[in-house]
Amino acid sequence: MIWLSQPCHGENGYNLWLRYKPVNSTSLKTEYRSYLNQIYFPSESDRLKAALDELNLGLNGLIGIKPQLLVRAQGSSVIATSNKIGALKKWVPDSVLKKIGNDGFVIKTINQAGRNVLLVTANSDLGILYGTFYLLKLMQTGKTLSGLDVVEYPRTMVRVLDHWDNPNRTVERGYAGFSIWNWHKLPGYIDSRYIDYARANASVGINGSVLNNVNASIQMLTPAYLVKIKALADAFRPYGIRVYLSVKFDSPIELGGLKTADPLDPEVIKWWKIKTDEIYSYIPDFGGFLVKANSEGQPGPQTYGRSHADGANMLGNALAPHHGIVMWRAFVYDDKVPDDRAKQAYNEFKPLDGQFNANVIIQVKSGPIDFQPREAFHPLFGALPNTSVMLELQLTQEYLGFSTHLVYEAPLFKECMDADTYRQGKNSTVARILEGVYNPKLITGMAGVANIGTDVNWCGHPFAQANWYAFGRLAWNPQASAAAIADDWLRMTFSSEKVFIDPMKREMLQSRENTVNYMTPLGLHHIMGASGHYGPGPWTDNMGRADWTAVYYHKADTAGIGFDRTKSGSNALGQYSPEVQAYFGNLNTCPDEYLLWFHHLSWQYKMRSGKTLWEEMVHHYYAGADSVKKMQQTWNSLRPYVDQERFSEVQQLMAVQYEEAIRWRNSCVLYFQTFSRQPIPVGYDRPEHDLAYYRSLRYPNVPGQGVN
Amino acid sequence: MIWLSQPCHGENGYNLWLRYKPVNSTSLKTEYRSYLNQIYFPSESDRLKAALDELNLGLNGLIGIKPQLLVRAQGSSVIATSNKIGALKKWVPDSVLKKIGNDGFVIKTINQAGRNVLLVTANSDLGILYGTFYLLKLMQTGKTLSGLDVVEYPRTMVRVLDHWDNPNRTVERGYAGFSIWNWHKLPGYIDSRYIDYARANASVGINGSVLNNVNASIQMLTPAYLVKIKALADAFRPYGIRVYLSVKFDSPIELGGLKTADPLDPEVIKWWKIKTDEIYSYIPDFGGFLVKANSEGQPGPQTYGRSHADGANMLGNALAPHHGIVMWRAFVYDDKVPDDRAKQAYNEFKPLDGQFNANVIIQVKSGPIDFQPREAFHPLFGALPNTSVMLELQLTQEYLGFSTHLVYEAPLFKECMDADTYRQGKNSTVARILEGVYNPKLITGMAGVANIGTDVNWCGHPFAQANWYAFGRLAWNPQASAAAIADDWLRMTFSSEKVFIDPMKREMLQSRENTVNYMTPLGLHHIMGASGHYGPGPWTDNMGRADWTAVYYHKADTAGIGFDRTKSGSNALGQYSPEVQAYFGNLNTCPDEYLLWFHHLSWQYKMRSGKTLWEEMVHHYYAGADSVKKMQQTWNSLRPYVDQERFSEVQQLMAVQYEEAIRWRNSCVLYFQTFSRQPIPVGYDRPEHDLAYYRSLRYPNVPGQGVN
Repeated sequence: MIWLSQPCHGENGYNLWLRYKPVNSTSLKTEYRSYLNQIYFPSESDRLKAALDELNLGLNGLIGIKPQLLVRAQGSSVIATSNKIGALKKWVPDSVLKKIGNDGFVIKTINQAGRNVLLVTANSDLGILYGTFYLLKLMQTGKTLSGLDVVEYPRTMVRVLDHWDNPNRTVERGYAGFSIWNWHKLPGYIDSRYIDYARANASVGINGSVLNNVNASIQMLTPAYLVKIKALADAFRPYGIRVYLSVKFDSPIELGGLKTADPLDPEVIKWWKIKTDEIYSYIPDFGGFLVKANSEGQPGPQTYGRSHADGANMLGNALAPHHGIVMWRAFVYDDKVPDDRAKQAYNEFKPLDGQFNANVIIQVKSGPIDFQPREAFHPLFGALPNTSVMLELQLTQEYLGFSTHLVYEAPLFKECMDADTYRQGKNSTVARILEGVYNPKLITGMAGVANIGTDVNWCGHPFAQANWYAFGRLAWNPQASAAAIADDWLRMTFSSEKVFIDPMKREMLQSRENTVNYMTPLGLHHIMGASGHYGPGPWTDNMGRADWTAVYYHKADTAGIGFDRTKSGSNALGQYSPEVQAYFGNLNTCPDEYLLWFHHLSWQYKMRSGKTLWEEMVHHYYAGADSVKKMQQTWNSLRPYVDQERFSEVQQLMAVQYEEAIRWRNSCVLYFQTFSRQPIPVGYDRPEHDLAYYRSLRYPNVPGQGVN
Repeated sequence: MIWLSQPCHGENGYNLWLRYKPVNSTSLKTEYRSYLNQIYFPSESDRLKAALDELNLGLNGLIGIKPQLLVRAQGSSVIATSNKIGALKKWVPDSVLKKIGNDGFVIKTINQAGRNVLLVTANSDLGILYGTFYLLKLMQTGKTLSGLDVVEYPRTMVRVLDHWDNPNRTVERGYAGFSIWNWHKLPGYIDSRYIDYARANASVGINGSVLNNVNASIQMLTPAYLVKIKALADAFRPYGIRVYLSVKFDSPIELGGLKTADPLDPEVIKWWKIKTDEIYSYIPDFGGFLVKANSEGQPGPQTYGRSHADGANMLGNALAPHHGIVMWRAFVYDDKVPDDRAKQAYNEFKPLDGQFNANVIIQVKSGPIDFQPREAFHPLFGALPNTSVMLELQLTQEYLGFSTHLVYEAPLFKECMDADTYRQGKNSTVARILEGVYNPKLITGMAGVANIGTDVNWCGHPFAQANWYAFGRLAWNPQASAAAIADDWLRMTFSSEKVFIDPMKREMLQSRENTVNYMTPLGLHHIMGASGHYGPGPWTDNMGRADWTAVYYHKADTAGIGFDRTKSGSNALGQYSPEVQAYFGNLNTCPDEYLLWFHHLSWQYKMRSGKTLWEEMVHHYYAGADSVKKMQQTWNSLRPYVDQERFSEVQQLMAVQYEEAIRWRNSCVLYFQTFSRQPIPVGYDRPEHDLAYYRSLRYPNVPGQGVN
């Protein structure tokens, strides 16, 4: 359950960013001890015990002490809720306590009569847990505790990981092994991994886990599984993690034996109410339901001629007495091939604004297609002023090279969050909408599709851990910077040496753009291999339906390439505010990065660089692959600062990434060349093989295709 | 790749029996250092480097030193092949060097002019690796190095783990997660787990791995997979592990596009020859093929009117130029329901004795049914004097409670090995047949169906590691005792404290009999749940064919119970030697343990104990479940000697085991009571539920049912 701070067999990555390695600086060590040798830290509840355990674990590793626990606040350091901090209360005005709410905390240090005193306080035990992790982070990252005046509180309410895990332990789009939920051994066996999972989440403020795949199995709602889910909920509770379940809309039929799942049918309403009450009888603080309805073959209210609001509100009514919520996904498409799939969510949800219950929140992906390396931000952000909306991000690298490519995703996430919707005037960014700035009555939240599996290092790639970490940090505060998060993560996960941090932080911050360059530059999207989404598949043209193919999205022909989403095309752009329409619609202002997302252009189109579109595209593909080679050189130069095991892991993975980047580059350049009919400009290496070769490659058993 | 000796996060079990914890005894520490402070250990080859790395790792953990490496043998300790030991050669007569063969080793210590000198020598680098592990074991188990005169060599040649792993990473009958072979990331990414797997195997003398399921996928023979298999072979080679593949007999059709897989067809012969040559072009020391043919729906030579010998020899001919072997499984049954499935292997293979090529070895399970908690030994042992025969054991607990039951399997394995076949006179035990005592020209070997998966602790249950360990030790020396092996394993894996070792060794040695008692006492067999083999299913009567049901095997009716395999019944007993027939056939000599395996008896049959058969059966079921409770008490009393993490894991697992033992007991007693029509004798608890309840229990997603 609780790990010691020493690494084992080199460093296998299991400890994530909670390694608690000894502090090198003697002066910092002395300073930390002066604040923490003695402390008043009451711990009556399981949650406070978890916080104290973590503090002891961390201090043992960082500075080799176990603090002496005092029986009352007596002029020494204090970690306690605000009703127990005695005289130190004068340090924390009521206005601050009000501001931090239930989950926030305050950390202050002063020197009192020559004595260093630390205060961590909060309105709740959960705030104390979060404050304790924050305090440990300061020490892990080598910050002084002197003169601290920290006021921290989360900007969103629901901060959840979505696990696309099936009861048979396969993980849809999982690239780090299999599901960490060992259903067969539950409820009797609580794997210590569950506790460490909860600790890691709590350390970054994540407060919920949706345990199962959005393509949901009805088994999860059976008593045999509810007792197992209860066991997980009990294990997570001290760390402030509530469990949620994905549910299948047709459950009343498949599980309940009813003839319909029509959300307005009284029997259906009753079935869900009884089932929901049953769940709460096992798990009193159950979080609620996540629903994928009328999308990719899943049943939903439209199956019965009802709206998304009818469906979501029916479930919301069942959950409301227990204070549970419904997270209803906006990733929808019906069984008709659309002129532009990018328009579907907006078309279906915009008319429903204001019709959803107070405990229903619409979960919207960052972009309107599907977690691509780059997409324009989703037009629903800002378009539903009277509806709770949360952002769904994908941590698992379905479209970003699985777990062999180093891609730090915070810049991708931030690109969406920092986008200005102009829906409430200038600077009404997605981030501000997510924070509920414009309608404080709404629920706010962020969901990350987890990249966690049974691999010893949790995420498959040592650097993929950074995406789990960054998600938590950004859900807590969407204004946080990708660079600052990378800095903290690198210090905690690898080393605080500046000569290591500086170059690796640069590589991390650049890594997503590198991947865009060798996969989908200039606004290209969804040209990955069919079904498994592994490697390049720009030639994919023969799937079940047109909008599952690559050619639907790139629309390359001898005249040009790109998806015209302006008025002359699908006019998906019309779903945005006028300012955004003007910005993306005008070729003079539309950034190169979004060019082919919104415009179909001639191969001869003259880019800002002076190159033709064809030349520019080739340049991006080659620059992307080259950047991986450069990243390899950076990593190789950092060998002295990394333990042997992880150094070798990353080195091997980068070699795989480079090989795959070259395959992406060659496949796409050769394929698009059949339309551009232009040579590869001089100065670029010829592809090693011809297009037929790349098209012939097959990859059986691509991971991440698990099904129930 | 190489782990440090410190535990991390408590002890998660990843380090197996190679923990190298500090030696507590000061005198032993001093002694060990005196032998190992300086050493001549030439290490030109990868295999010797692996041995030296292991020595350094072990000594760093055990006694905190890194030995000084000398440039020549100069009166100090030496670890080197016999051609490099200089003057120490006089310690090792040629006769001993001849005796130890290629894989054996010698360890000697003397005190020379007041100086402690150690010699580890061998005829090969592999012998040095094995000797190094043995030396480390002596220190791990707290033995003195003074006066050592060890001569060790393996008694069997082929010591392999059979992995029933599929290319999609499911593991048939796997209960420790999923396949550790991450095919998608191979060949580019060598998981450090592969190296640690090879180390663990080498430490107990295992020298081969069959990488894939006997229900084999043809994908493994494609170039895309061969390059991955080569990468594993390269990783394993320093540790003396050769890779083998399970192959599907119809591969020439499915992969080669031929019209037939007839082993006498010239095109088929040619196809296998070319494919085999291709494999060796990747892996020059490839071990060979394992084949499941004409069994459970798999194709085989009989499909084409040919014999097992025709099929095996054809493959043998393809492998012979490369010195590879064929392991041909005797676990066969055709598509007709037999009068007694126990007779099939003998009936099919006995007539073929002497017809198999020199590089073909028949792989025979311990008993004639299928890895049951107890079976009579397989009648083929000793019945094929002119055929190479190896023993197939199942480490994974398909029929022994999966990975939640503590079952130390060495007593089960030994029961088979120690059985006297009388085929070459008294004391011609299975062990001696396996060792090739009666025909030195034959290949010898043992296979263990692996219990290894992606679980951090490799085997799911901390004590299941003991079965992997014991298999290696017994393959090396079938005469080794289950108790001595348990002793070594406990010391290395947990603690050398006598107060811990004594009671836990007793529990381990008793654990298999306990499980027999609550599952299948008195010779009952194959009454597990249908398909998944989870939990009790004595009522199973409606499968695809009779010999897949439980009622076929227990034959209970109101008159009695048991499978009559004497002359009055199936006469399977007639397949054994006359002495064995007499022993098992006569109710006066047949042990209670085998009673219902060989005899159908009345419920009123009077047992040696004075009880009726019904009373005796009830007694066994209750005693079995009670013994788990006793084991829990033992474990709870040992808390001071075990790290917190593994203590808690085992404690939880034992609670699950107890619950399942009770369920076994209640299910079987209530079910068989419907035939015996006798009350449960006084003094035994009434089952909590009725039979209908136990029959109604369903377990979806039982692990271990992975398919290609």
